[in-house]
Amino acid sequence: MRNMTHENSIGVVGVIGAGRMGQPVIGHLVRKGFVAVVHDIDPGKRERVEGLGARWADAPATLARECQAILVCVGYDREVRELLSPAGLLPDLARATIVAVLSTVNPRTMQDLAEAAARSGVHVVDSTMCRGGRAADEGTLLAFVGGAADVVERLTPVLACFSTDIVHTGGVGTAQVAKAANNMVMWACLVANHEALALAKRSGVDVELLRASLSKTGADNYALRHWGTNTMAWAEDDLDIVQAMAHDVGIGLPQAGLNRELCRTLKPKRFKLDEYGV
Amino acid sequence: MRNMTHENSIGVVGVIGAGRMGQPVIGHLVRKGFVAVVHDIDPGKRERVEGLGARWADAPATLARECQAILVCVGYDREVRELLSPAGLLPDLARATIVAVLSTVNPRTMQDLAEAAARSGVHVVDSTMCRGGRAADEGTLLAFVGGAADVVERLTPVLACFSTDIVHTGGVGTAQVAKAANNMVMWACLVANHEALALAKRSGVDVELLRASLSKTGADNYALRHWGTNTMAWAEDDLDIVQAMAHDVGIGLPQAGLNRELCRTLKPKRFKLDEYGV
Amino acid sequence: MRNMTHENSIGVVGVIGAGRMGQPVIGHLVRKGFVAVVHDIDPGKRERVEGLGARWADAPATLARECQAILVCVGYDREVRELLSPAGLLPDLARATIVAVLSTVNPRTMQDLAEAAARSGVHVVDSTMCRGGRAADEGTLLAFVGGAADVVERLTPVLACFSTDIVHTGGVGTAQVAKAANNMVMWACLVANHEALALAKRSGVDVELLRASLSKTGADNYALRHWGTNTMAWAEDDLDIVQAMAHDVGIGLPQAGLNRELCRTLKPKRFKLDEYGV
Amino acid sequence: MRNMTHENSIGVVGVIGAGRMGQPVIGHLVRKGFVAVVHDIDPGKRERVEGLGARWADAPATLARECQAILVCVGYDREVRELLSPAGLLPDLARATIVAVLSTVNPRTMQDLAEAAARSGVHVVDSTMCRGGRAADEGTLLAFVGGAADVVERLTPVLACFSTDIVHTGGVGTAQVAKAANNMVMWACLVANHEALALAKRSGVDVELLRASLSKTGADNYALRHWGTNTMAWAEDDLDIVQAMAHDVGIGLPQAGLNRELCRTLKPKRFKLDEYGV
Repeated sequence: MRNMTHENSIGVVGVIGAGRMGQPVIGHLVRKGFVAVVHDIDPGKRERVEGLGARWADAPATLARECQAILVCVGYDREVRELLSPAGLLPDLARATIVAVLSTVNPRTMQDLAEAAARSGVHVVDSTMCRGGRAADEGTLLAFVGGAADVVERLTPVLACFSTDIVHTGGVGTAQVAKAANNMVMWACLVANHEALALAKRSGVDVELLRASLSKTGADNYALRHWGTNTMAWAEDDLDIVQAMAHDVGIGLPQAGLNRELCRTLKPKRFKLDEYGV
Repeated sequence: MRNMTHENSIGVVGVIGAGRMGQPVIGHLVRKGFVAVVHDIDPGKRERVEGLGARWADAPATLARECQAILVCVGYDREVRELLSPAGLLPDLARATIVAVLSTVNPRTMQDLAEAAARSGVHVVDSTMCRGGRAADEGTLLAFVGGAADVVERLTPVLACFSTDIVHTGGVGTAQVAKAANNMVMWACLVANHEALALAKRSGVDVELLRASLSKTGADNYALRHWGTNTMAWAEDDLDIVQAMAHDVGIGLPQAGLNRELCRTLKPKRFKLDEYGV
Repeated sequence: MRNMTHENSIGVVGVIGAGRMGQPVIGHLVRKGFVAVVHDIDPGKRERVEGLGARWADAPATLARECQAILVCVGYDREVRELLSPAGLLPDLARATIVAVLSTVNPRTMQDLAEAAARSGVHVVDSTMCRGGRAADEGTLLAFVGGAADVVERLTPVLACFSTDIVHTGGVGTAQVAKAANNMVMWACLVANHEALALAKRSGVDVELLRASLSKTGADNYALRHWGTNTMAWAEDDLDIVQAMAHDVGIGLPQAGLNRELCRTLKPKRFKLDEYGV
Repeated sequence: MRNMTHENSIGVVGVIGAGRMGQPVIGHLVRKGFVAVVHDIDPGKRERVEGLGARWADAPATLARECQAILVCVGYDREVRELLSPAGLLPDLARATIVAVLSTVNPRTMQDLAEAAARSGVHVVDSTMCRGGRAADEGTLLAFVGGAADVVERLTPVLACFSTDIVHTGGVGTAQVAKAANNMVMWACLVANHEALALAKRSGVDVELLRASLSKTGADNYALRHWGTNTMAWAEDDLDIVQAMAHDVGIGLPQAGLNRELCRTLKPKRFKLDEYGV
């Protein structure tokens, strides 16, 4: 176990949500010497979680009391709000506990929650994860973190268990902004790649040769280099948040608004070029 | 000068159009030992062309008679059609001459011209250039080539003067398809990057920090890595061709159609994030 | 006062929300002989409401007990949900009370609320209003109603006070679908009219002559005939719901998704053709 | 035959193009007492044309010499340019002849042609037709006319044979601008109607009831009132011209650019709501 000489240092880390992102995070925490206590709404995950070397908690409240930091890895804005509401975890958290939201939510949600938590001396920050599931498995995520510098500093050893890049983006909410920017570009590229390759295929060009070549030109993008691997599971949720954010700051994002609609129908036929645009 | 033991080998190369792309191409040809004969509609370019070690030709027809290969580097579809019409170069070309169109035009234009030229024993192929002006200067372009394999093989030493990658995409017109695909994705990325960074800026995030970070995530793309350098000079012409191609093959490209309109207004305020989407 | 011979007939109508739509509705109810009891979150509206001949209620719960029908004229989905939650009106409503939601909300919200209310014997229906504020003033609205036929029949005399057309669209939620369809087309037309007239103006055509002429061709649309009058107050909220609905039924609406983004920036410069698309 | 007391009055009218629009135009001209002389590139149309009471001309040049006015009803920009080029009709036209282009072309094309024709004393104007084929049959078209006032005045009796509204929009080209504006809005409405009705159908609403109701609300538009009748034959050609015009005047039309792509795939499945957006 990690040495805990300083009162502020973190030894016990809670994880709420043991899904695609939560599970590898738990594994890395344990391997790096943290005590991990985990809750998931699905009790069927208990065995898997204990197999990773973590302790199971039947409820978020149980976990709340003993952790110096809690990583929230649930799916949706609403779940994060409920979890961190007065009816949720909040009354059970000790002062100075850091709650890091890894989920993709509206920056405004983060600011609301951080403000409410601050009244109990609890630090809510956002720490969004880029690079996807495989990087989570390998512990090579890029983490954006939004919060006060000293809180981010305390949290850094935890994030470093599974992230090779940690970028402090500014105050609470900014890690969500950064993630939203990441998502917008990624989904835009995926749609653009489909349009370009579908046109090429329809025009009689060898698509695989073209794809490989384009990754060596000004068209190069991550989604093109990793063509065929994206499940598009979160495309629409991501772009829904982007549009809500754009509304909040009063900016028009025509391409993103269109991409949301295109991704909705693209998802079930992704990478099937014959079905694009017909 | 290059050894010309084989009747099919190319020693004298014509270049029509000494603009941003033509000039470095001429320089590389000369440095690699080809005789370059050059025409540009603007006689003011003569001095510059001769300074590169090439011969000046007052008219395309003059140049036509003595070249085994001609590289067409003019700007527009209409210019290429006129140049290779019966009223243009065509009657002056020797049999077996290769005319390579480096300009971005409709694949159908290429096919029409190649078919007409074939009746005179002339080979018209398309060889489109990717990676932009700086790569042209450095001789590190990626060349797509569309044409019969033996013609492409004969042309390869010429293209290799200024290209580090030469990709044979298939029959005549396919290099234009490949270039169109390249352009679509590139302009899509440029718009997407603007939307993402404008949203981030408006939301109070440090844009340069974010931009640098996104080049290490799933949002990575060439246009983001080279942020601030694209003149957008050709965006709308490129996307006009893309839409015409989509019409010809009967495919809908909603994002590309939108991007064309967005690029039109973006061009004069490119990279000025405060002016995007307001 | 209206004759109340039948136990099911409605004599006292509650109105929650005395805004732009609620106020004329209250006036028409009173003039047609209904007793109107009104609550608004803003106590400053009391004088205005009493001036219309209605009684003021300090809280929704007060009003709930004595009304056979309640018209909900609040602004947002969240407000409707809260009002009709177990923590809101619901426990105070007598069995067989009809609650008609005139606000524009997600059809799913309607179905959730109707299902919950049914357990208390309360009928929640949606009755959305078309044609805007002036038609509300004149009592010439078109009302879509979604609910069981007998409930709609009981409610009809109430709606007829301010509606010259009442269209029963089907089960609960369908009046919201109909209103969403109405909104989508209206905002699409408003954007299209801007694009067409802005292009015409920029091309040197007399815009007012053109606008008047187009209302006599295949381009005719309501928004063009009433050019200059739309405040666009609800454009983005409307289209946000449309996209959420499209998500729920798994359909892609590319034009609507784009229109939402375009409306956001158009709103502050609506009808200023020189500022469109530049 | 019409009385020709004034030297400027028109008695013999040429029509070039006897297609969907040309044929009813010819019929109306003959019925109103004009001598009509007609050419179509398809000689198979001769019998039909003579059946309408017009004379057949084997070539445009034949017709050119004897007409005081010529109506051009061909399909495309390129055809109009060729017809009115020095290699076409132009040398055969008498001074003061009016050539009215009814086809939908780029305003710039009109201005180029008018300028060239003016050097021979020939008046080229644009007179675009709205309201579609049925209105052409009934002689109830709306005609936009772009040209000098005196030329428009001379042409008016000809246009009045088949138009119940004649709108003088300004100088040469403005009738094309007006028609482009008409087209943009019409295609936008058709797409918007599809999106709205497809969403409604997918959400379980009776589409025909809804469609009929929407024509009485703020969503009302011509395309909705005439649902099911539009062939969409010209959608993409129309929007191609719109984008070229937008390019020429430097304005961005995001909805129109998107609509072009949507119309391409919509055309073969128009009015089939189950196939929209899936």
